[in-house]
Amino acid sequence: MKIQIVVYPDVTALDFVGPLQIWTAWPGAEIEVVAETTDPLPTDSVMSIIPTHSYQTAAMAPDILFIPGGAEGNLRAIQNDALLVFVRSRAEAAKWITSVCTGALILGAAGLLKGYRCTTHWLVFDHLKGFGGIPVAERWVIDRNRATGGGVTAGIDFGLRLMGEIAGRETAEAAQLVVEYAPKPPFDSGSPENARNETCDSIRAALSDYLRTLEGIMEAESARLAPMTTRDEV
Amino acid sequence: MKIQIVVYPDVTALDFVGPLQIWTAWPGAEIEVVAETTDPLPTDSVMSIIPTHSYQTAAMAPDILFIPGGAEGNLRAIQNDALLVFVRSRAEAAKWITSVCTGALILGAAGLLKGYRCTTHWLVFDHLKGFGGIPVAERWVIDRNRATGGGVTAGIDFGLRLMGEIAGRETAEAAQLVVEYAPKPPFDSGSPENARNETCDSIRAALSDYLRTLEGIMEAESARLAPMTTRDEV
Repeated sequence: MKIQIVVYPDVTALDFVGPLQIWTAWPGAEIEVVAETTDPLPTDSVMSIIPTHSYQTAAMAPDILFIPGGAEGNLRAIQNDALLVFVRSRAEAAKWITSVCTGALILGAAGLLKGYRCTTHWLVFDHLKGFGGIPVAERWVIDRNRATGGGVTAGIDFGLRLMGEIAGRETAEAAQLVVEYAPKPPFDSGSPENARNETCDSIRAALSDYLRTLEGIMEAESARLAPMTTRDEV
Repeated sequence: MKIQIVVYPDVTALDFVGPLQIWTAWPGAEIEVVAETTDPLPTDSVMSIIPTHSYQTAAMAPDILFIPGGAEGNLRAIQNDALLVFVRSRAEAAKWITSVCTGALILGAAGLLKGYRCTTHWLVFDHLKGFGGIPVAERWVIDRNRATGGGVTAGIDFGLRLMGEIAGRETAEAAQLVVEYAPKPPFDSGSPENARNETCDSIRAALSDYLRTLEGIMEAESARLAPMTTRDEV
């Protein structure tokens, strides 16, 4: 059971540490944390990490290929050809192609979500369509061999669900008990439906630069791809 | 707002990345990830991290002193004099003295839980008494300036709750929405009360060496401290 977690500069730490911790309790799992090089890699959360593998040493055919998300770092990632080439190369033989949060935008930019039901962080939910994905408003979505999770903390639910799908419910339940996952949020503000309007507005405002840049990238990309699409359709 | 996260070899990654990610959305927070040195530090989850500060460079008076847990690494930590001296030194001026999971055992070994209501991972819940703590079976417990969380994933609930306590509910609610914390566990196996008996037994069996070693350490410690206690009481 080979699991490949692909990280990149300024990745959101909890996006991948949630599933990583769950899968660490997976008997027999070999987990690779892969980046372009094994130099220290900054996350979005003061801490840098040391990847275990580089693009050169990463397994060719992982059972699970998993891409976590990020904010500014994600914008650079979806334009990073070396990263997209690597993701496509491992996706060819991977049994499962998966993401959490804005990691879905990287799968999308790599052309791996076309025609798939999928999900991502609430803030960029509608943007999945720009990559040919079919957004579904669930905590996690499984469509054929694509498994995608919502924003950040959804990685824990996603990680358990995928583990249950592959290894069986009892194995996943043991992992859940090890990490004492009996959540009890002290506030009810975890989704735009539940949060106060002012809270949503403040986050949209704080991330308005991120959203504007993302939309610019997607427009440029779609302009670049448009003639091809037309030619294909003729 | 200065937050000091104290890590040590083989710390459980999600124990501290949960609160770290929540607190990264805390406006004005300065977060230190502190270890004995700033050399790469292995976690329990294949990935190593780079601490931002060493014992020498860490702030003297953090607003929050926070200790995450671990399994084998935690056993070494509760016997590590340099770590306990560091924790005591920062606890002297810290506004809040806090932990998640078996981080509570480190606070306990440093003598910082005596007479305090507190919690930890379900597997070692009763052991808090051995350090003079008063175990309370809650997801998080706040008693005066001690805030403790349950096992691993409880760090997210703990982190939000403490943020709400200090910075106000609205700030914590915004952090909750950023990380889309609307948990939806796919299975109901996150606590010994909910999990199947066989699941609990399998985890107790897998961690029996850990528990036996912990109990040995606590017996030796209590034998060493017993004469002092008697002298004090006479």
